[in-house]
Amino acid sequence: MKGCLITLEGGEGAGKSSALSVLRDGLNARGISPILTREPGGTRMGEAIRSLVLDRELGPVAAECELLLMFAARAQLVQEVILPALERGEWVLSDRFTDASFAYQGAGRGQPLERIAALEAWATQGIRPDLTLLLDLPSAAGLARAGLRSEPDRIEREDLGFFDRVRAGYRARAAAEPARFRVIDAAGDIESVSRQLRAALAAFLSQRGLD
Amino acid sequence: MKGCLITLEGGEGAGKSSALSVLRDGLNARGISPILTREPGGTRMGEAIRSLVLDRELGPVAAECELLLMFAARAQLVQEVILPALERGEWVLSDRFTDASFAYQGAGRGQPLERIAALEAWATQGIRPDLTLLLDLPSAAGLARAGLRSEPDRIEREDLGFFDRVRAGYRARAAAEPARFRVIDAAGDIESVSRQLRAALAAFLSQRGLD
Repeated sequence: MKGCLITLEGGEGAGKSSALSVLRDGLNARGISPILTREPGGTRMGEAIRSLVLDRELGPVAAECELLLMFAARAQLVQEVILPALERGEWVLSDRFTDASFAYQGAGRGQPLERIAALEAWATQGIRPDLTLLLDLPSAAGLARAGLRSEPDRIEREDLGFFDRVRAGYRARAAAEPARFRVIDAAGDIESVSRQLRAALAAFLSQRGLD
Repeated sequence: MKGCLITLEGGEGAGKSSALSVLRDGLNARGISPILTREPGGTRMGEAIRSLVLDRELGPVAAECELLLMFAARAQLVQEVILPALERGEWVLSDRFTDASFAYQGAGRGQPLERIAALEAWATQGIRPDLTLLLDLPSAAGLARAGLRSEPDRIEREDLGFFDRVRAGYRARAAAEPARFRVIDAAGDIESVSRQLRAALAAFLSQRGLD
């Protein structure tokens, strides 16, 4: 059996943590134990980079610097975790991946998309997810949820316009690659979201002859 | 008066610290007080990135990750320090700059030079040094000097072959851009090196009508 990379994407407060549990349980039920990881992070170096990226005390960060840090963490994750896992035939379930850079650093911060695509071509050794689940909901609703949870980090402190652009960036990615993306309406309650996730996962597994 | 960027390059133990003092004193003597900076580093974010890059405890670092971290620090330094200084008409004297990525991550680690050139084109907003002084000496001699000084960091722990490639990478850069580079024979004693540096600086200032 060939390995498989499933990624979960979405803005702040979209419910990624709950969704990861639903996906992991769904895979477990088919006898698949995915490696769980997250971006930025997932390696010692990547988690250290994550701390820098989200640190509110480091002052204004150049958009180019932020983009390069995200890909630095991603390059390490791909080489240290994702590629070896896929080569062993394992499944990887990642909380965010390259689409997040197109949405956040591209649509959100205005970094040119062709610049991000060029980085993707070599920094991630051409690794693309087999399935990407996008938790989509209005930015204001997501921020309201996220605000109940914890102190905002550097990126969470951006304004609503930024998160509107991020959402639009994600939706544009999904529209451009409908075969890879499944857009989940994340505005409803947790049971509605879970149901959609289970259905999307079942359809994907069925396509691969794993139902 | 237009600002000016002077960079100092060289391998381990080449004597960059002493050389920086000589250059700073030489500029001061003409009434120029350069902003001193270093790479990776020179900003709060950049110094935090430097700590990650040199950390021996973070385990093996993917070559792509290292290259991206170097450019992340550089992007921040250019935007936060170098560009504003040049626009104010100030002089900047930097302990390493983009040539170091061509030498260390390119020649040393085998990252394709066109990849580094592509990053240079946008991450540093096209900033090129006006003068680059390369302290050149055989790698073994430099490592012997550096070894007397302190515990080696992650990059200093590479083998002689790596530093031979770095040296060759630097020399190739200098050969390709003779108008920008001055190669200093750094194998001699400090007085010989200082004399060469002062002469190179004097020639550069003379070209600019500043002698």
